[in-house]
Amino acid sequence: MSENGEKLPDIQMYRDDRKLKINKVGVKGVRYPIIVRDKAAGSQSTVATINMYVELSHDLKGTHMSRFIEILNEYRGEIGINRFRAILERMKEHLNASSAHMEIEFPYFMEKEAPVSREKSLMEYYCRFEGNLSDKHDFIVRVKVPVMTVCPCSKEISVYGAHNQRGIVTVSVRFRKFFWIEDVIRMAETSASGELFSLLKRPDEKYITEKSFDNPRFAEDVVREIATKLKADENFFWFSVEAENFESIHNHSAYAYIEFS
Amino acid sequence: MSENGEKLPDIQMYRDDRKLKINKVGVKGVRYPIIVRDKAAGSQSTVATINMYVELSHDLKGTHMSRFIEILNEYRGEIGINRFRAILERMKEHLNASSAHMEIEFPYFMEKEAPVSREKSLMEYYCRFEGNLSDKHDFIVRVKVPVMTVCPCSKEISVYGAHNQRGIVTVSVRFRKFFWIEDVIRMAETSASGELFSLLKRPDEKYITEKSFDNPRFAEDVVREIATKLKADENFFWFSVEAENFESIHNHSAYAYIEFS
Amino acid sequence: MSENGEKLPDIQMYRDDRKLKINKVGVKGVRYPIIVRDKAAGSQSTVATINMYVELSHDLKGTHMSRFIEILNEYRGEIGINRFRAILERMKEHLNASSAHMEIEFPYFMEKEAPVSREKSLMEYYCRFEGNLSDKHDFIVRVKVPVMTVCPCSKEISVYGAHNQRGIVTVSVRFRKFFWIEDVIRMAETSASGELFSLLKRPDEKYITEKSFDNPRFAEDVVREIATKLKADENFFWFSVEAENFESIHNHSAYAYIEFS
Amino acid sequence: MSENGEKLPDIQMYRDDRKLKINKVGVKGVRYPIIVRDKAAGSQSTVATINMYVELSHDLKGTHMSRFIEILNEYRGEIGINRFRAILERMKEHLNASSAHMEIEFPYFMEKEAPVSREKSLMEYYCRFEGNLSDKHDFIVRVKVPVMTVCPCSKEISVYGAHNQRGIVTVSVRFRKFFWIEDVIRMAETSASGELFSLLKRPDEKYITEKSFDNPRFAEDVVREIATKLKADENFFWFSVEAENFESIHNHSAYAYIEFS
Repeated sequence: MSENGEKLPDIQMYRDDRKLKINKVGVKGVRYPIIVRDKAAGSQSTVATINMYVELSHDLKGTHMSRFIEILNEYRGEIGINRFRAILERMKEHLNASSAHMEIEFPYFMEKEAPVSREKSLMEYYCRFEGNLSDKHDFIVRVKVPVMTVCPCSKEISVYGAHNQRGIVTVSVRFRKFFWIEDVIRMAETSASGELFSLLKRPDEKYITEKSFDNPRFAEDVVREIATKLKADENFFWFSVEAENFESIHNHSAYAYIEFS
Repeated sequence: MSENGEKLPDIQMYRDDRKLKINKVGVKGVRYPIIVRDKAAGSQSTVATINMYVELSHDLKGTHMSRFIEILNEYRGEIGINRFRAILERMKEHLNASSAHMEIEFPYFMEKEAPVSREKSLMEYYCRFEGNLSDKHDFIVRVKVPVMTVCPCSKEISVYGAHNQRGIVTVSVRFRKFFWIEDVIRMAETSASGELFSLLKRPDEKYITEKSFDNPRFAEDVVREIATKLKADENFFWFSVEAENFESIHNHSAYAYIEFS
Repeated sequence: MSENGEKLPDIQMYRDDRKLKINKVGVKGVRYPIIVRDKAAGSQSTVATINMYVELSHDLKGTHMSRFIEILNEYRGEIGINRFRAILERMKEHLNASSAHMEIEFPYFMEKEAPVSREKSLMEYYCRFEGNLSDKHDFIVRVKVPVMTVCPCSKEISVYGAHNQRGIVTVSVRFRKFFWIEDVIRMAETSASGELFSLLKRPDEKYITEKSFDNPRFAEDVVREIATKLKADENFFWFSVEAENFESIHNHSAYAYIEFS
Repeated sequence: MSENGEKLPDIQMYRDDRKLKINKVGVKGVRYPIIVRDKAAGSQSTVATINMYVELSHDLKGTHMSRFIEILNEYRGEIGINRFRAILERMKEHLNASSAHMEIEFPYFMEKEAPVSREKSLMEYYCRFEGNLSDKHDFIVRVKVPVMTVCPCSKEISVYGAHNQRGIVTVSVRFRKFFWIEDVIRMAETSASGELFSLLKRPDEKYITEKSFDNPRFAEDVVREIATKLKADENFFWFSVEAENFESIHNHSAYAYIEFS
C-alpha cells in the first residue's frame, strides 16, 4: 500500500460507496530509534514502538500507508513530547485527514543511587505518549513503574514475616504544562512499600527490607497514595493509576485501578 | 490478602480516610479451565484467563481477594455467556460492592472443512467476554479471527502477483439476544480476501489462492465489509471492528478500526 | 504447501541439488485441544501448542506440511505421553523420513488444598513433552512450577522481614518408566520456601507466611534441593533444574541452573 | 542477595554440603542501554536484555548477584563484540568462578534504500551475542531477519497468484575473525523471495511484488540458500539457519532448521 508511482493507478484514492467513515487507519507496531528528553542528562537514546492513525473519510477507499513513515523520517531525531503536536498536524495535512492519532511507547532509563552504599545503577521504566488532534487536542503521558509491596494483612496476622512481591504501577496523566516524567516515576516509587534498584549491596538490602516492612501496602493503598499526590498537583487535570501485584503466594495478580477527572 | 481467620484481624475492613473510591479492585490473570457452549458439538473444554473486579467504597481499606476465587469455584463448570450475569450479581453480593466487572478470555476451536478436499481440521480463535454490572448491565463479546488479505494496490500495479499476508480481525459487539460466536467468526472470515485452515491439500490450496486473488482487500475494506454486515443485523446495537495486517513487505502492520453505535 | 492434488504437480518431490540435508522441517505453533492423563481425575482437557518436524533428505526439495496435521487428526483425543512414540513412528512413515521430532506444550491444572482451611482450588502448571525418534528414541518431560522464595541473606541481615517473591522452577527429566507429573510438581513445590495456591483464607496465609520465613532459599538452594531429590530417584537418568526468581527488590531475575547426567 | 555489608554476615560464602556444582548462576533479564558498532554510522545506541552467569563451585552456598551489575557498570558504554571476552574474564575474576557465560540481545537498525524510488528508511533486526569462557572460549553471534516468502507450490498449481507471507530467518554463527552483522543480514534478505522495507512507494511495491513472484521459496529453500552461502565463507566454522514462515493460509508456521559444523 503505497503511492506516487508515476503512471501507476492510485487505488487508495478510488471512491468508496459503503458510506462508512473509518475512525482510525494507519500503521501499527513501527519500531523506531528515538531520542527523548532526560531530566538528568539532557537527552537519552531509546527504541520506540509507534502507532500512527488518521480518520478516513467515508468516500475514500484507503489511506496512503507510506506517508506515515515519511513523516516519521521527517521528524527523525525530534520525536518526543515537544514535537508531538507538530507531528499530528503534519499527519492531518499530509494524509488530508480531519483527525490524527499517534502512540509512542519506549523503555526509559534513570540512574538511581542505592540508599546506603550510594552505588549508582540504572532502572528501566516504560513510557507512552498518546496524542489525538481533531478540532481539539488531547495528550496523555503514561509511565509504568516497577515497585515492591509488602502485604499489610500478611504482616499483621503472622508472628513474623509477610509476603511481598514485585508489582507494576501504571500512571497516566493529562496535564496543563510540561512536567518531568522522572517526577511522576518518583511519586510512584515513594508510594509503594519499597522501590527497586539494579544494584544493591548488603547494607542497602538491609535498609530496603526493613523500610518496606515498615510500610506495608495493599494494591489499594498504592493507587490511593499516588492519586492523593496527583490530586494535590493542579497541573494534572485527569489521571488514572493502576497497581498490579504479582502476588508471591498466588499465581495471579492483585489489582487496583483508580481514575480521576 | 485473605479473610475469615477466626480470631485474626481483618485489615481489609479497616476504615480508610483518604476519601478515594477505587473504580476496580480484584484479581487479574487467574487461569481457569472452563467449558463453553459450542454450536456444533454442544460444549467445548478450554482454558481461560480471568479478571474479576469490584468497586471499592471510599471508606474501606481493601477488598477480600480470596472471595473472587471462591465465586469462580462456586460456578466451576458453568462459566460462560449464560451464567455471566449471575456471576456478576454474586460478586456484588459476596464482595458487598456497588458494581462488579469480569473479563474472560479463552481460545476456542471450530472444525472447518477444506473447500475442495473436504478434509476436516480445527481452527483456533480467541474469544473474550466482558461484563459490568452496577445499576446497569453491560456486556461485550469479542472474537479475534485470523484471515488472509491480498493487497488491491499491489495486485493492480504489478504485472503479476500481489503481496498478501496473515491478518487478525477483532470484532466486538453489544447485542440484544443470544447469538452464536461461530456466526460472527464466519462473518469475519468471509469478509477478508481469504480464510485460514489448519489442513489443506493441493487442490484446496489452488482454490484458496485463486479465490483470494479474486478478492483483494485492504485492511480498510475488511473493516467496512464486516461493519456493513453487522449494521444490517439489528441484534447488534453497538460494535467495533479492527483489522491488523502483518504486511509481508513491511515489518509493521497496516491497521484499520471502525466503531459504530 | 500441500499435496495430493490429483493432477497438480508435486513441487515438494522435486530433486534438490544443493546437497544439504535439513535437520528439522515441519509445522510450528499448531494450536490443538488435547486430553492428558491426570493422576487425580483420570483425564484432563487442555489446549496445546505443538511443533512437529522431520529430517529432510538432501535430495528432496520440500516436505509435505499438510501430513503433519493429518497425523494430529488421526491421533485426536489420544495425544499424550502414552502415544507419543507411536506418533513419532507415524511421522517417520507418513513423511518418509529418517527421524521425527515433536514438542507439545500445554497448561495443566491440579486441585490443591489450602494448608489450614482445607479450601480447594486449582493451580496451573506448564508441561512440555519433547520426543525424537531416529535409530534411537529420546523423550524429555518438562514442567514449570511457580513457587515462592524468601531470601536467606535479606532475612539474616535484617532486624525484621526479608524480601520474597514469586519464582518459576523448570524441571526437565529423561526417565526409565512412567511417572506422574504431579509427583515432580510436588517435588518442586516442597523444595522452595513456599508453594502457591489460588485460594487462601487468612489462617492459611498466616501459616504459609511463617513457614516460608522458616525456610529461606536462594535460587541456588532451590535447584540443589530438587536435584538432590531427583538424583535419589533412579528412574531419572538425566535431568536439569532451573530456578528463576522475579526479585522483589530488583527489576531483573536471580537465576540458577543445574544439569545432571 | 548482595554483599559487602561491613559487619553484615555474608551468607553466600557459607559452606554447602550437598556436593552439587551449579552450572549457571547469576542475573537474568537485566535491561541495559548499550552502544554497538554500526557499519554505516560508526555506532548505534540501543537497549539490550542481558543474562550473566557463572559456574558455582559445589562447596559454596551462593553467588554475589550484585557483582554482575557492578561489572556491567564498569563496562558501560563499551558493551559489544569487542569487549565481550574482557567482560567474561572480569566475571570469572570478580566472581571467583571457573567459567562465565553472558548473553546480550538487542534490536538493531539499518538504513535501507527502496529499490526504485531510493527512499531511505530504517529496518529493525534482533541481534544476540552469546559467549562462554572456561578453559576454552566460545562465542556465537545470532541475528533475526524478517523476510518475505512466496510459496513455490501455490504459485505452480494456481492459474494466478500465490500465497506469500512474512517470515523470520534466524542465523547463528561461530567465526574466526570479525565480520559485520550487516553482511549476514544482507545474506539472509537476499536468500528469501523478497526483503522488507519500512517505506515503499508504488513503483517500489510493484518491483518487489514482481521480483518476489519470480523467486518463490519454501522455508526449506531459504535455509538451504543461506547455508550454501555461509559454507562458502570459511570465516564461519559453525552455523545454524532457521526459517519460520507465518503462513498466510494457515494459522501456524512452516519451519525449517539446518545446522552445520
